[in-house]
Amino acid sequence: MTGKDGGAPLEPAPGSPVVILVRPQLADNIGAVARAMGNGGLFHLRLVAPRDGWPQERAWRMASGADRLLEAATVHDTVADAVADLHRVFATCPRPRHIVKPVLTARAAAADLRDAAARGLRAGLLFGPERAGLDNDDIAQADTLVRFPLNPEFMSLNLSQAVMVMAYEWWTAADATPPRVLMTNESRVAVKGALQNFMAHLIDELDACGFLRNAPKRPGMVRNLWHLFERGEVTEQELRTLHGVVTELAVGRRARGRVERDMLAPELD
Amino acid sequence: MTGKDGGAPLEPAPGSPVVILVRPQLADNIGAVARAMGNGGLFHLRLVAPRDGWPQERAWRMASGADRLLEAATVHDTVADAVADLHRVFATCPRPRHIVKPVLTARAAAADLRDAAARGLRAGLLFGPERAGLDNDDIAQADTLVRFPLNPEFMSLNLSQAVMVMAYEWWTAADATPPRVLMTNESRVAVKGALQNFMAHLIDELDACGFLRNAPKRPGMVRNLWHLFERGEVTEQELRTLHGVVTELAVGRRARGRVERDMLAPELD
Repeated sequence: MTGKDGGAPLEPAPGSPVVILVRPQLADNIGAVARAMGNGGLFHLRLVAPRDGWPQERAWRMASGADRLLEAATVHDTVADAVADLHRVFATCPRPRHIVKPVLTARAAAADLRDAAARGLRAGLLFGPERAGLDNDDIAQADTLVRFPLNPEFMSLNLSQAVMVMAYEWWTAADATPPRVLMTNESRVAVKGALQNFMAHLIDELDACGFLRNAPKRPGMVRNLWHLFERGEVTEQELRTLHGVVTELAVGRRARGRVERDMLAPELD
Repeated sequence: MTGKDGGAPLEPAPGSPVVILVRPQLADNIGAVARAMGNGGLFHLRLVAPRDGWPQERAWRMASGADRLLEAATVHDTVADAVADLHRVFATCPRPRHIVKPVLTARAAAADLRDAAARGLRAGLLFGPERAGLDNDDIAQADTLVRFPLNPEFMSLNLSQAVMVMAYEWWTAADATPPRVLMTNESRVAVKGALQNFMAHLIDELDACGFLRNAPKRPGMVRNLWHLFERGEVTEQELRTLHGVVTELAVGRRARGRVERDMLAPELD
């Protein structure tokens, strides 16, 4: 599933939170994190004591064009240093122990991050190393915990997937896409009068071929056809196609003459 | 960020939609997809014409224990075959052209999938190959399109990340986690009376050491301290700690006598 690919003009989005990877182990994951950040409109990346040093060529290979994020990333010795200029720090943490702190879902955290940004506060999100996660000293540097609602039977969440969920929620929190639209592209949804014209054409032909000749059942059969065609928000182009379909099917029937119909008559009655 | 690791008892969740990877190219991605599915409580995986055949050892390596999903995966020659037993088919598709179809956000799609499951309908989600995405014939097999609200400037979404977003939304659609809780673990939030006791202790000591000796400012200073301690839903354990902190600081001051205070007096007044 791809869209605009590498080299997109990723810019630092105003107010977007800093992603802070604490002691990340794999350069592949750092690159995948950068890509996920780009997807969700995040830009600022900080690395605390990356295990294999920095920069790492493999990160660029996995970033699929989110190069500017990687080039702008900063390296820090400690979590304290990485958060010193931030007003709010959220720590992602699946099962914290012996901690007294507010815990937000990813969605609530995203709303909170948007609020903080609107108030001019700089915020950061801490993500722990791949295996161990954040340790207790890391978490003590955060004011808020974020816990993703996910399958408790299988919590092994890849680092870049965790960042993806937060980046997605960050983007979605300010997104106004309607939940459901009928995409019609170059065509338009037909007005009811156009649908009525088509239905009249269809019913005329069905009357002509005898499909609706059972008088008591006819009104119900017509209504059922109406229900089917009403469900789909038919477009003008589709109605033109449907007129053609009905006309051509009828021409075929007429060309064949009455022969087949007479053969089938015993079954039809 | 890890939780319960490999070997978790992943079970087919009743009503959970089928993930259908159409012509997937990389076994790594198939494994990462299985892991993301496990995170979001999905189980059923179908592969349409995987480029490098199936099974692939690398998929298992990337699945981080979601082995049962991979073992239960089925391979199909065509999309038509992979969707034949399904009632609803959603296609993930970033920028469809010349198509007339309902388009849902990932969140609306997840709600729709939950509704379909509750009605006993089997549903599937089509994901296209890594580079090209679904083609027009694939999309014609779907009744609904899903489009993720994400950064239009950087739409290059990894296949497993796309599955992660849908799996996360599927799980979240039925999740009742409160958006925000104060996690207190073994401690409890203190009642107001316990906070009042601590504040009385603190203010006594601040009166004793002269910190509050400016009579006109005293009420405002006391209120500000109240506001600070009221903000945090202080726990019983934290109040015990704070009592100790105040007591010990006061002991230290007394032990040092008046010397330091007298030295600082000119600046303080």
